[in-house]
Amino acid sequence: MEKFRFLTSGESHGKCLTAIIEGLPANLEIDIDFINEELKRRQCGYGRGGRMKIESDTVEIMSGVRFGKTLGSPVTLVIKNNDFENWQKVMIADPKNITSDKAFTTFRPGHADYAGSVKYNQKDLRNILERSSARKTAIEVAVGAVAKLFLKQFGITGSSKVLQIGNGKTEEEFRAEIDKAKAAGDTLGGKIEVVYENLPVGLGSFVHWDRTLDGKIAQAVMSVPAVKSVSIGNHHAYKMTGSEYHDEIFCEEGKIIRKTNNAGGIEGGMSNGENIVVTAVMKPIPTLRKPLCSLDCVTLEQTEAHFERSDTCAVEACAVVAEARVACVLADEILLKYGGDCMEECLKHFNN
Amino acid sequence: MEKFRFLTSGESHGKCLTAIIEGLPANLEIDIDFINEELKRRQCGYGRGGRMKIESDTVEIMSGVRFGKTLGSPVTLVIKNNDFENWQKVMIADPKNITSDKAFTTFRPGHADYAGSVKYNQKDLRNILERSSARKTAIEVAVGAVAKLFLKQFGITGSSKVLQIGNGKTEEEFRAEIDKAKAAGDTLGGKIEVVYENLPVGLGSFVHWDRTLDGKIAQAVMSVPAVKSVSIGNHHAYKMTGSEYHDEIFCEEGKIIRKTNNAGGIEGGMSNGENIVVTAVMKPIPTLRKPLCSLDCVTLEQTEAHFERSDTCAVEACAVVAEARVACVLADEILLKYGGDCMEECLKHFNN
Amino acid sequence: MEKFRFLTSGESHGKCLTAIIEGLPANLEIDIDFINEELKRRQCGYGRGGRMKIESDTVEIMSGVRFGKTLGSPVTLVIKNNDFENWQKVMIADPKNITSDKAFTTFRPGHADYAGSVKYNQKDLRNILERSSARKTAIEVAVGAVAKLFLKQFGITGSSKVLQIGNGKTEEEFRAEIDKAKAAGDTLGGKIEVVYENLPVGLGSFVHWDRTLDGKIAQAVMSVPAVKSVSIGNHHAYKMTGSEYHDEIFCEEGKIIRKTNNAGGIEGGMSNGENIVVTAVMKPIPTLRKPLCSLDCVTLEQTEAHFERSDTCAVEACAVVAEARVACVLADEILLKYGGDCMEECLKHFNN
Amino acid sequence: MEKFRFLTSGESHGKCLTAIIEGLPANLEIDIDFINEELKRRQCGYGRGGRMKIESDTVEIMSGVRFGKTLGSPVTLVIKNNDFENWQKVMIADPKNITSDKAFTTFRPGHADYAGSVKYNQKDLRNILERSSARKTAIEVAVGAVAKLFLKQFGITGSSKVLQIGNGKTEEEFRAEIDKAKAAGDTLGGKIEVVYENLPVGLGSFVHWDRTLDGKIAQAVMSVPAVKSVSIGNHHAYKMTGSEYHDEIFCEEGKIIRKTNNAGGIEGGMSNGENIVVTAVMKPIPTLRKPLCSLDCVTLEQTEAHFERSDTCAVEACAVVAEARVACVLADEILLKYGGDCMEECLKHFNN
Repeated sequence: MEKFRFLTSGESHGKCLTAIIEGLPANLEIDIDFINEELKRRQCGYGRGGRMKIESDTVEIMSGVRFGKTLGSPVTLVIKNNDFENWQKVMIADPKNITSDKAFTTFRPGHADYAGSVKYNQKDLRNILERSSARKTAIEVAVGAVAKLFLKQFGITGSSKVLQIGNGKTEEEFRAEIDKAKAAGDTLGGKIEVVYENLPVGLGSFVHWDRTLDGKIAQAVMSVPAVKSVSIGNHHAYKMTGSEYHDEIFCEEGKIIRKTNNAGGIEGGMSNGENIVVTAVMKPIPTLRKPLCSLDCVTLEQTEAHFERSDTCAVEACAVVAEARVACVLADEILLKYGGDCMEECLKHFNN
Repeated sequence: MEKFRFLTSGESHGKCLTAIIEGLPANLEIDIDFINEELKRRQCGYGRGGRMKIESDTVEIMSGVRFGKTLGSPVTLVIKNNDFENWQKVMIADPKNITSDKAFTTFRPGHADYAGSVKYNQKDLRNILERSSARKTAIEVAVGAVAKLFLKQFGITGSSKVLQIGNGKTEEEFRAEIDKAKAAGDTLGGKIEVVYENLPVGLGSFVHWDRTLDGKIAQAVMSVPAVKSVSIGNHHAYKMTGSEYHDEIFCEEGKIIRKTNNAGGIEGGMSNGENIVVTAVMKPIPTLRKPLCSLDCVTLEQTEAHFERSDTCAVEACAVVAEARVACVLADEILLKYGGDCMEECLKHFNN
Repeated sequence: MEKFRFLTSGESHGKCLTAIIEGLPANLEIDIDFINEELKRRQCGYGRGGRMKIESDTVEIMSGVRFGKTLGSPVTLVIKNNDFENWQKVMIADPKNITSDKAFTTFRPGHADYAGSVKYNQKDLRNILERSSARKTAIEVAVGAVAKLFLKQFGITGSSKVLQIGNGKTEEEFRAEIDKAKAAGDTLGGKIEVVYENLPVGLGSFVHWDRTLDGKIAQAVMSVPAVKSVSIGNHHAYKMTGSEYHDEIFCEEGKIIRKTNNAGGIEGGMSNGENIVVTAVMKPIPTLRKPLCSLDCVTLEQTEAHFERSDTCAVEACAVVAEARVACVLADEILLKYGGDCMEECLKHFNN
Repeated sequence: MEKFRFLTSGESHGKCLTAIIEGLPANLEIDIDFINEELKRRQCGYGRGGRMKIESDTVEIMSGVRFGKTLGSPVTLVIKNNDFENWQKVMIADPKNITSDKAFTTFRPGHADYAGSVKYNQKDLRNILERSSARKTAIEVAVGAVAKLFLKQFGITGSSKVLQIGNGKTEEEFRAEIDKAKAAGDTLGGKIEVVYENLPVGLGSFVHWDRTLDGKIAQAVMSVPAVKSVSIGNHHAYKMTGSEYHDEIFCEEGKIIRKTNNAGGIEGGMSNGENIVVTAVMKPIPTLRKPLCSLDCVTLEQTEAHFERSDTCAVEACAVVAEARVACVLADEILLKYGGDCMEECLKHFNN
């Protein structure tokens, strides 16, 4: 992210989540209701646990926006933790009031606990859990919502959906799979799809590996917690022949068109004008009621993994987060390609 | 890539391919034979066309190495194009001797031609083909070989193999599939696997999305030409339950071990000490003898795609390139985690 | 800044100033009182106007620190604007309640108003003033204070002082100069010096221009608002001969020493173990009670520059900000050279 | 440098100097004669030693340019070392033929030798000298020449001159000072000025410290070997009052003008449309015929500094290098502000 830069922060049970976005042009209208709707989309989904009711996330804008429009200065977004008073004692920054409440020492397989405790030299695994939790994706969705507001100005829109959960491939089957897993104290992952429409030709590039659009999207989506696979376009690329796979090029009424989109909108590391289609696989949630074998990080004795209140399945949320991530990549690419310090200039360059 | 920085350059039929690597510590032994062997690995593989015989790539070191060891200054690698004299007239930098030899104007579906010609405002598609060609991966393999030499000092080794070509899943079937496609004037893709062994715990991080190791690997591998999918670990993550998928943690003789590696060596965006296992899907090569429908970029008239001498299948090469890319990511992460300006210092920090 | 990354945000009269610092190792003790003392140092100084009394800045830590130590996750610092209720109407993010209170349209020569209004397409120059104001340096001092806490762990300490204000070269003369300027409705700049002591040899590098330590310091200090000149070491370098200027090298009791430090602690783009001495020139504050000729940005009619409550002289604050900036550069260099994900690891590498 | 990216490489007596520039738009005309003239400007100057005759640098383009125009792909520039055959034995990459010819072990005060040998763990100081030598600036001038060709398309032009050498302030005095120093076996530095004209308003920004134009210029110029001070605009800023210093704003025939340019073309971290005026101080060359006290890096015994053939004064070359560096910063800023993947698009955005 070279022009649409951002940093996010915040622990799962800390005071708040924060993001600073640097690089937005001035005079972009910021619809705070839209951001909040995106946050709501992330919180919904069958299979989520009790926390979702506590959350009801809303964003507050602390800087960079005046009278509904960006100033060109960094935009700060904050999502307060409504439950913080219950965690204050446990999450306090102050060194004077250390408590071992909510401390835990058993690694959860599949989570950051083990590697994180080694890397950051921690014996209370809460010090790892708090930031490695997927809670942080709430603020990333807010950042993505701002990116989506920017993209809308260029006519670019995105959406996402769940393709599969466990072995279920329809809404009805999703619920049955989740119910079954929940009853067993188990968890599930699945497959999701993100689509962006109406893109200009030529975002990204083949000229250097770190400028390919698919490479940037892959990083953005793979770094969503629990995502283990990212694909662009038709999943069967590996077993199709060239003549089956490649999207032939036609001209209708002076317009270049395709009749297929196996490439998922990206050829040669660039957007080719077709819909960008990204799919991703999410692994099952690592925090299980049904315990897995693990170790105590202090004694190294065999024990059962810690259980922190959790969801059975968060694939729907994962789709929303992935959609937000792709928005950020596309916003960055639009800014790189068209330049512009205010929306009027960006759009003039774009419409040229 | 923050510490192991590099830029590569060069056209498919230009004078040479070049890479400058900046950020290597001093006193790393550079075994040029090893680099050349890696280049050879990329050139082999059933299904490659005639060009492979012309290439027989070897690298020349132009800077940064003295008496067999790095100086800490940027290392320059050059692979000369042995066939350049036959292309000199066509690829000359000089503006005085423009020729239309080897020009072409028909978009190849699946290649960079269409989007590239729009983006870079070109009517002779050779101006797109020359850099978008996979030829440039030769120098990327050389860069990766240097990264592998660095990683070896820490005991880290990598390998790669082909998992599937078309519908073939064994060496024998690969050849049969390729022969069939070749006879039909068609092309094939496939699936490959890259494995790195003996990694320290804690490369990458969960603390910010752009520091996750899997995200960085995903970008690096997805940007290999023709790769459309990147996965870490077990492919069935989307349909397994948490209790089936997650790798339980055990302690044997004071050592933390796993009995499974579904996570592919990465949990919470970090290496967890198990083998890193990356798989990728390569689409079929876009340049087919059997012509696809396309357009002329000048007249927009319907025509057949241009055929430039090409391979039937390059999945084996793709595996070698992906392996090289992952090496660069891991070298960067080692440098970030352990610091050090000379090998002696890097290793002292590492062995601490 | 590659490892010690940060973004800051906030308007002069907005809700708050915010910073997110990403890249700190875990287990660094954060002394919030020290940060607040640094904020206080910035606010003192003869010649400051009324705002300083309103400010009395204190920082709140919103993330990244638990029980007095960093977690390795991003650290969020917030300085609330205690006067915000008086500005709420003027600085509101909401689009529904637009007011023209506190709007102004006359460019202040020497300030960002003119170029900013062109760049960001603004007619109410408050939209430029709010972020271009030096108010934002408060949060930068807080970030620098965190960097200083990190540096202290390695024995590295910094300080700064005013060398000259107007024509005054002593404390007494500074005050006389400021009193005179204030009486005339005028403003003053001056010269400051930042010194860092006890640095390891070899921060920065000569191997690539963008890795020189002096280059990074120059950017960091030149970007302090109103700074127009940055120097390292003896100011008379341009008129001294080589034999007068260069710091001869001696060995006393097995230790390499210098008897002079004309180089200001940096040779070949690297720290050489001597004190790093940086001086900078601050131009006079652009907001004058005594009006300058200017234009109205809407009518382009000649008028007098806008006067917003301001200081006569802020050279002491400038020194504190410059000192904070240099701390950030040095912290980044320490992290790059020694690596480490927690303080224990950083220090082990350092002491090796 | 975010869009105009480049890496350079090469040792002083190695095979060649190389640069790869990534990020240039397609269809920029590359006038190789212009690049060579810039290289010549760097080599001239009273006070240079014998090497200048050997050098007579010329550039060869290895990639990224076809028929006189850029392709959008990385541009590779090479300057061969015409004297390499005399150095082959000493600078060979091969580990088999190590020689101690041309090795040296005495630190030169003022040079990178001491800190470099500690940082990179070297006992033969040639391993430091070779890359820390100012020889590498030749390829940086070539890169800057490409940036200047780009800037010319937007009507932006640059120049530089020497302001002072030792105590000399005129051409005649420069020569007298140099002759005197040379006779004494001593060396000299001086002051230079770089001016860029015809810039658009609004390059750089105040919104975040690392986006200020003056900050970027300061880094670029301070990292020129031997530069110890960088200033923008009037040198007397520290002792002038606000009413004396700030450039009042007028309107003549509908055009905004200034009658003074004390700000040196930059206000609020942005170009304001006036000439950008940068001055820099170069310290005297560290390699003296008249020996300085120093140490042997192996024995730590007191000795006299090593003398490698050198110049008495290189201030004229320094001016050319600084001019090249500023060109790179400005080219990057133009690319960031206006975007564009080919020159036609860049210019359309610019002229909008």
